[in-house]
This record gives sequence, C-alpha cells and structure tokens, in this order.
Amino acid sequence: MAVYTHVDPDELAALVARYDIGTVVSCKGIAEGVENSNYLLETTGGRFILTLYEKRVKADDLPFFVALLDHLARAGCAVPAMIHDREGAAIQRIAGRSACVIQFLPGISLTHPTPGQCAAAGGALGAMHRALAGYSGARDNSMGHHHWRAIAAGAGDLDSVLPGLQAEVDTELDWLDAHWPAGLPRHVIHADLFPDNVLMLGETVTGLIDFYFAATDFRAYDVAITHASWCFSDDGKRCDQGRASALMRGYLGEVALSDAEIAALPLLARGASLRFLLTRAHDWIHTPAGALVTRKDPSPFLERLRRYRADDAAALFAA
Amino acid sequence: MAVYTHVDPDELAALVARYDIGTVVSCKGIAEGVENSNYLLETTGGRFILTLYEKRVKADDLPFFVALLDHLARAGCAVPAMIHDREGAAIQRIAGRSACVIQFLPGISLTHPTPGQCAAAGGALGAMHRALAGYSGARDNSMGHHHWRAIAAGAGDLDSVLPGLQAEVDTELDWLDAHWPAGLPRHVIHADLFPDNVLMLGETVTGLIDFYFAATDFRAYDVAITHASWCFSDDGKRCDQGRASALMRGYLGEVALSDAEIAALPLLARGASLRFLLTRAHDWIHTPAGALVTRKDPSPFLERLRRYRADDAAALFAA
Repeated sequence: MAVYTHVDPDELAALVARYDIGTVVSCKGIAEGVENSNYLLETTGGRFILTLYEKRVKADDLPFFVALLDHLARAGCAVPAMIHDREGAAIQRIAGRSACVIQFLPGISLTHPTPGQCAAAGGALGAMHRALAGYSGARDNSMGHHHWRAIAAGAGDLDSVLPGLQAEVDTELDWLDAHWPAGLPRHVIHADLFPDNVLMLGETVTGLIDFYFAATDFRAYDVAITHASWCFSDDGKRCDQGRASALMRGYLGEVALSDAEIAALPLLARGASLRFLLTRAHDWIHTPAGALVTRKDPSPFLERLRRYRADDAAALFAA
Repeated sequence: MAVYTHVDPDELAALVARYDIGTVVSCKGIAEGVENSNYLLETTGGRFILTLYEKRVKADDLPFFVALLDHLARAGCAVPAMIHDREGAAIQRIAGRSACVIQFLPGISLTHPTPGQCAAAGGALGAMHRALAGYSGARDNSMGHHHWRAIAAGAGDLDSVLPGLQAEVDTELDWLDAHWPAGLPRHVIHADLFPDNVLMLGETVTGLIDFYFAATDFRAYDVAITHASWCFSDDGKRCDQGRASALMRGYLGEVALSDAEIAALPLLARGASLRFLLTRAHDWIHTPAGALVTRKDPSPFLERLRRYRADDAAALFAA
C-alpha cells in the first residue's frame, strides 16, 4: 500500500475547478488500493476519493470501470459513484496520470467478519449480481481460468516459495482444465471481493470498492472468490462453517443459483484459491525482501485449495 | 511514507469508546509522517488523526510532545490539539503501540509556496516562538549541532553519494565547531518546519504539524531551517529573494531578533543545511534501491550549504 504520485496543490485546485464541488479544503494521500495513488479529498462541497491510475490499471480500461460504477450506482448498489465534471467527463488528467474523482463512502474494512457481517457481504454481492445480470459491458478476465497456466509460468520458481509447490500447481492446473465447466451464467463480476474491498458499519454494507479486477466470468466464480476470502482462518487451514453458511444465505436471498452452479462451487473455489496462490507467489518472488510493501504470504491460499479439494467440500457451501 | 501498522476494527472501536467522540464512521490509513502510522479517523463526533508511534518516536518522549501541543493549542497557535480521553489521558495503547488521537485540521501542504504564503509561514513560526519563549519544557536536540559529527560518522560512505562529499563535510564540521555561537535565545523549537509540515488554505496557515523533532535549540536556528526549506528552488541552487524576504518579514513581525541572532543566520543556515544533508545522505545510503519509500536526494542541501557559505549570504535574510 503506497501513494506513488505527488499531486501539486495548484494542479489539484485546477482539477477541482472543473467540477461543481467547491474548492479544496484538504487532501491527504491514503493507503488504499495497492496499485493506484489515492487521496482523500475534502472540498467545500463534500468529501471524495481522488484516484490517480498508475501503470497496472490500463487507461484503455478506465471507460469500462466508469460505466460499470455508473451502472451499479444507478441500480442502487452500495458502490462509490464516479463524479462527472461540468462537461460530463469522469476521467481526467493530473500529474501525468489518468484520474477520477469518486464519491467518498463511510464504513471500515473488516479483518475478522462475524457471521452477520458475512451474510451482509453475501447479500451485497448478490444484489450486485442481480444488477449486472443484464448488463451489456464486458471485459476479458486477465486473472481468469484461461490465463492461469501463463501466470504460473511467469511467477518464477514456485518451489522457492514452498518445496513441491510447482508439482502441486501443475497437477491442479491439469485437473481444473479437465473439469472446468462451460455454460454457467456469466456477466461482469467483481472478482476480488475480499473483506478489504467491502466497507461496513456494524452489519450494514456501506460500500463495495476497488473494482479494478472486475471482468466477465461466471457469477458462481465470484461467489467462490468471496467464500474463499471471507470464511477461513488467517492461515487458510480452517473454514468457519458459521460464516460460510451465513455468506451463502445472504447471497442466495438475492440470487437463485442453479443446481449446476451449486455443484460447481467447490471446483470454482479451487480455481479461486489457485488464482490468488499464483498471484501472491508471483509478488512474493518479485518483491525485494527489504521493500516496505507488505508481501502477502501465498501459503494460506494453498491451504484453502487443499481444503476445497477434500471429498466433503460441497458441505462448505451449505446455506 | 507508509502505514506500517494495521489497526483491527474491534480494537479501534474499543479505543474510541474511551473518548467522548462518538463511534467510528470511517478510518483510513494516510501517507503522512514518515515514521509513524497515521489514520484519518472519522467518528460521529468529528474528524481526527490517529497516530500510532513506531520505533523512531520513543515512548518516553510522548509526554513531552503532548505537553508541548497542549501548551501551543492553549496559547492559540495553529497546531492540532491532542484529544484527551474521559480520564484525561492523551497517550493510549493500540496494536502494541503507543497512540494518540489528535485534532484534524483542514489545509494542504504546499510544494511551491508564493511569497505571500512564505510570509504567513514566517508569521506562524514567529507566533509559535512567542508562545514558547517562557515555556518550561525542554528536550535535547538529537539532530542538533553537538550531534552532527556522530551523525556524519554513522551515515556511511558519504563519497558514495557524491565524490568528495566526505572532505567537504569534514571541513564544514570543523568550521561550524569553531564558529558556532553561544548565548543566543533558546527554547523549544519545531526544528523541521518544511512546507510538508505546514497546512495552509490560500495564504492562511491552518496548522503547523509533525512536532516529532521538536527540541530545545536557538530560536534563530529554527528560522534558519525554515529559510532553507521554504525559499530555494527544488535543486537547492537558487534562493528566491522574494520568498526569503517575505518569510523574514512575516517572522520579524512577531519576534524581534537581536543583532547577534541576525548576524548568526547565515552560519545557522549552513548548520541547518548540513543537518539535512547528513540525515538524507544516511537514508540514501541505507534505503534499498528497490524499496517503495521515496529516497530524498541529499544534494539540494549541499547546494544550499554552498549558497549560505557565499560572502553575500547575509543578504538572503534581508526582510
């Protein structure tokens, strides 16, 4: 987590002047989002997040994200609205980067959600899926199933993370290729709905944030990602059935998954675990040990993968 | 700039419950202060900065900083007030660290101040010095003149930063030791009043912040530090006479420096330049090149040092 780009106060004032949001009162770099520079911007007209997009978010993708958040906000989902300037533009340039001014939402990110909070998160995910079922936007999921072999190959020496990891990943990739389903309902999904990316107050979801991995994929795969990230102990070894059932109840109250989707959940969750195992392993191998960026240990996602591989894994998704 | 310590939401709620400031609405890590973890904390009662003190700020020093800010706030200076809990305590424990809840102040830090803003900063520095003239608190300046030789020795291979730097530093240390004044007015000073540490709205100072280098030293040395950090081009090669005169006018409108202090300013500014040259060189040598922390180039302070060494340096302090 880091602010990479410094914003000059004069440039900031000129940017803010494009909008009907008053003048700058305060602007502080915040440690939110790993790949962008984020500022908490206060003006005489309210509070906003100013995001400067660094290299990982492609400028070409920005119109997709703006349209997606506009759509979700209009549909009444708890997402931060993109603010448009007087001429209707949401994407600006500042400090040599593309930038957006985004609605500030109250709420805090949880680290250890309760079952009640898992139910609320599941409900918010389901409500978002309902709003996206007929949505015409589309984006290739560059972190999706078809890309995992390439991500694994580019991650570096997996055995340097954990002896034997390369062989276990290869076996899993083969199995997933042989069994990955086709024909499940697909639309744009969040694809990264970890507790980090859900703002809550008590048991109320105040915002789903950080849509920069959003892409077209199975909606049930989004459920699997959320299950994997909300329902396990920190070490990934234990799935908390109370949290898992609450999450599924919350989601199924909004979206009626088909029998085929329900049956696919353990497999999709194996895929989700592998996806985060691989990207964390990549970052683990490529982040200098002395860097002040937190390297996230990949092994809890290997533990999840093993748990989802067990014969009784279907029970983890019982509502 | 980095947030080092994660605060658990439950621990945060328990901390906030000690105060009469309502309940948590939002809490975001902010990239302010290099050595502490800072959060912008919003509660139903207002907005605050929550600071967790990492290793560089010694727990033993915290009561000094709290008393200093309490004193300055009572004196009407534009500083963030320390918030005291229902039992009167300002220093708490959270996430294994000492922590304080501090008043949030509006304003933004400038990068390229105008003369009018320099005048305002000089005035705020002078008003603070008036409030501190009779203040009983005291703290050794671990970054002060008596420590520079040790700091230079511990910085590492200065010639690796710039060929010939070691010899130039040694010569300067000898000269400063031979000429450093005695008997100038002393009290607690800010000792780090860079533009980073002054919040402004337009030409109004809304807050002097980051007092963690505050210590007992010559008040004129504080003026010299502020002069060196507000009045030069980014590369340190050019002193802007308009900004410098404005800064001095602003300050002298609050504090009447003696002739001896005025005469000492170029020498004190050489010392100030050396102090930041040495600490930046230390960080430059000791920060891994791959780290995401911004290494501040030491050479602009070598340029300042050379400028203050010139025969006509006294003119740089003309109001």
